[in-house]
Amino acid sequence: MTEGCDRLWRNARLATLAPGLPGLGEVEDGLVACRDGLILYAGPAADAPAFNAIETIDCEGRWITPGLIDCHTHLVHGGDRAHEFELRLAGASYEEIARAGGGILSTMAATRAASEAELVASALPRLDALIAEGVTTVEIKSGYGLALDHEMKQLRAARALGRERDVTVRTTFLGAHALPPEYAGDADGYISAVANEMLPAVAAEGLADAVDAFCEGIGFTPAQVDRLFEAAQARGLPVKLHAEQLSNLHGAALAARHGALSADHLEHLDDAGIAAMAAAGTVAVLLPGAFYFVRDTHRPPIDALRAAGVPIAIATDCNPGTSPLTSPLLAMNMAATLFRLTVPECLAGMTREAARALGLQDRTGTLEAGKACDLAIWSVERPAELVYRMGFNPLHARIRSGR
Amino acid sequence: MTEGCDRLWRNARLATLAPGLPGLGEVEDGLVACRDGLILYAGPAADAPAFNAIETIDCEGRWITPGLIDCHTHLVHGGDRAHEFELRLAGASYEEIARAGGGILSTMAATRAASEAELVASALPRLDALIAEGVTTVEIKSGYGLALDHEMKQLRAARALGRERDVTVRTTFLGAHALPPEYAGDADGYISAVANEMLPAVAAEGLADAVDAFCEGIGFTPAQVDRLFEAAQARGLPVKLHAEQLSNLHGAALAARHGALSADHLEHLDDAGIAAMAAAGTVAVLLPGAFYFVRDTHRPPIDALRAAGVPIAIATDCNPGTSPLTSPLLAMNMAATLFRLTVPECLAGMTREAARALGLQDRTGTLEAGKACDLAIWSVERPAELVYRMGFNPLHARIRSGR
Ligand SMILES: [Zn+2]
Ligand SMILES: [Zn+2]
Repeated sequence: MTEGCDRLWRNARLATLAPGLPGLGEVEDGLVACRDGLILYAGPAADAPAFNAIETIDCEGRWITPGLIDCHTHLVHGGDRAHEFELRLAGASYEEIARAGGGILSTMAATRAASEAELVASALPRLDALIAEGVTTVEIKSGYGLALDHEMKQLRAARALGRERDVTVRTTFLGAHALPPEYAGDADGYISAVANEMLPAVAAEGLADAVDAFCEGIGFTPAQVDRLFEAAQARGLPVKLHAEQLSNLHGAALAARHGALSADHLEHLDDAGIAAMAAAGTVAVLLPGAFYFVRDTHRPPIDALRAAGVPIAIATDCNPGTSPLTSPLLAMNMAATLFRLTVPECLAGMTREAARALGLQDRTGTLEAGKACDLAIWSVERPAELVYRMGFNPLHARIRSGR
Repeated sequence: MTEGCDRLWRNARLATLAPGLPGLGEVEDGLVACRDGLILYAGPAADAPAFNAIETIDCEGRWITPGLIDCHTHLVHGGDRAHEFELRLAGASYEEIARAGGGILSTMAATRAASEAELVASALPRLDALIAEGVTTVEIKSGYGLALDHEMKQLRAARALGRERDVTVRTTFLGAHALPPEYAGDADGYISAVANEMLPAVAAEGLADAVDAFCEGIGFTPAQVDRLFEAAQARGLPVKLHAEQLSNLHGAALAARHGALSADHLEHLDDAGIAAMAAAGTVAVLLPGAFYFVRDTHRPPIDALRAAGVPIAIATDCNPGTSPLTSPLLAMNMAATLFRLTVPECLAGMTREAARALGLQDRTGTLEAGKACDLAIWSVERPAELVYRMGFNPLHARIRSGR
C-alpha cells in the first residue's frame, strides 16, 4: 500500500516545533509529504508510510523548519524616517526634529499623501526582504492613515501585497495608533470615531483580521482601549495590544481580560499582567528590534513570562520610526542577544507562537500533519546558526502551501 | 575635444567621500567616468569634460558611493561557534562550554583540521554576503592556525578567495592571536616562534600585507607585541593591533609608536592613547558587532577621538566567537545606534577611513580621479538609509575596477 502525495522532501533534518516535544522537536532523518497544500506527514523517515509522490526533493541533509511568521509589522507606510535618524545622530533636539517634520505625524502625512498603489510599491521591497529569509505569513497593521479613507487604503494595500506575492497576509486595524491632528486635545472623540465609524466600515469590507491599539501615555488610555475592544468584539474581531512599552498602564491585563490574541512590547509588564496573560493564553510578542533601535535598557520580564508559561513570540515590528528592521533572522538574534531567549524560544517565537499570536495555530507554524505545508529549508549544520549569525541568510528554499 | 573612456555612469547622485569636503562630499547631478579600471572623473556633470564612452549607464538618480571596505575580518576559519552560543543562552557556565569544546581553541582545532580548499569553501558564503552589500575590498586575518603550516594555510586560503571572487583581498598575519596549547605557559617562547620562524616564512611567500596581534590580558603583553612589531618592521611589513578591547594595556600608544596603520576595538582607550594615535595618523577601527554580540557596555571614547581628529573606521570583525557578522550595512547601523557615530562618519568609516586602515588610501575608498573605479550603486533616496535600515540591502550594482 502506498499513499499518493504531491511533493515529498526527503533526506532532511526537521525542526518540527511540534508542541509538547522538547527543544525544537528535532528529527534527524526526516521527511515531509504534502498533498493539496497541506502537510500529510512530517516526521522520521523510518516511521513514514510508503509514499507515491509526483515529485521528490532530496534535501541533502539540510534542515527544514516551519516557514517563518512575522506576527507584528507596520510594513505598509509612506516615506521613511532616515533623515530624522540622521538629524538625531548629528545632535538635533526633539524640537528641531519636529520642526524638520519628524515623528509619527510625518509618517502619517506621507501615508496620507500616497496612493494605494504607491503604498504597495514602497512596501514590496520590505516584504521581499522578509520572504527572502523564509517568511510565509506576515501580519500588517494600519495606523498611519488615522482617518477612515487612509486607514482603509492602508489595509487594502496590505491585502494587495498578499496577492502580489506568494505569502499569507493577516491585516490588523490599528486606527488607535496615534491621535491625528484633526482631533488634537480630543482623544475620546477620536476613539469614538475609530470605534463607531472607522471600525464598522473596515469590518464591513472584511479588511481587518484583528484590531489593535497603542496603550501608552503618548497613545491611548486603558479606558479608551476598553471601549474600542468592546466594539471590536461586538463584531467578532479578535484584539491585540501595544502594551507596557514605555510605562506600565496595565494594558496587558486589560488585553487578557478581552481574551486578546497577544500583548506586544511588554518592557514594563508587571506580575499581575503576566498572570492575566497566562490565564487567558494571550501571547507575549517581543519586539527586540525596537528595543535595540530606541536604545531601551528596560528588558521585558523574560524569566517571569517563562515561569508563568506565557507563550512568547518574536517579531520585527518593521516600522519607520522605531524599528526599520526587515530581517526575521536578525530579530531572533536580537531576542537571544538582548533578551537572552534560548535558541528553541527564538525559533518557536518566529513559528509556532507567532502563529498563535495571529490565531493561526491550527493552520501553520509547525511541521504537523494537517497544517499548511509552509516550509523554510536552510543550508545550516544546526538550527542554532539561524539565531547566532548576524546579517547572513542561509535560506535554501521557501515553500508556501506546498509550492 | 572629447575624452575617451571605457564606461560612464551618468544621472547619478554621488557621495564622493573626498577628503576636505563637508559631509559626504555630495554631488546632486553627478557622473563617474572610468578608464583602464581607474576613475577618470567623478563629480558634477556640469563640470565634466565631454566623454566619448564605450558604454554609458543611466543610474536613474541612484546614489553612488565608493565600494565598501571591510578592513577587519577573520573571514577564514574552520567550524562555527553556534553550539557554544546555544549552550550559553541555555545557561551553561564557561567551564561547561570549555568542556563541550568551546572557545577560541575550538576554532583553532577546526581550522587546523580543515584543508585549504575546505577553508576557502566555508569562507565563500561569508565573502559573498559581504560582496552582496557592495564590498569591493576586504581584509582577512590569519590567527586560528597558531602554528606555521596552519597559519600559512589560512593566509593562502585568504589569497585564494581574492582569485575566486572579484574582490580585493588584503591579508594580515595574526599568529599572535592566542596562545596555542603547544606553548601553554610559555607566551614568550611562542612570540619568539611567531617573530623569528613564522613571520619570516610568511613574508618570504608574500602571504601577508600586514602584521597584527591581540594585546590583552588573555592575549599578549605590550612587551611581547613590541618584539613582534620590530620583527615585522624589519621586514617592511606594516602593523596593526587589537588593543584596549577588554582592558587598557596602552596597546594603542604602542601601536602608534610603531606607526601602526590602525588600532582596533579601543573600548578602553585612554587620552594618552588617543593623542598618540592622532600624532601617528593611526586609524581607530571600531567593531560594534563584537561590542553588541558580547554585550559590552563600555563604549569607545568617540567624542575624544573626534576631538583629537583620529580617523575612524568601522568593520564587521567577522569571526565565529565574538562577531558572527557578515553585513557591513548592519555594522554601520550598530556604529550609529550603539556608538552614536553620525551618518557621514559611518559611511566614511566603511570607505575612505577603512582604506586608510589598510594603507590603501591612495588607491581606493573615495570617488576621486586616479583611484580604482570601485563603486556601490544604491537604490535609496538618501545615503542615510544605508545606515538607518536594519537587515535590508538596497544595493543595485557593484563595480570593481570599472567592471
Ligand atoms: Zn508596533
Ligand atoms: Zn578581530
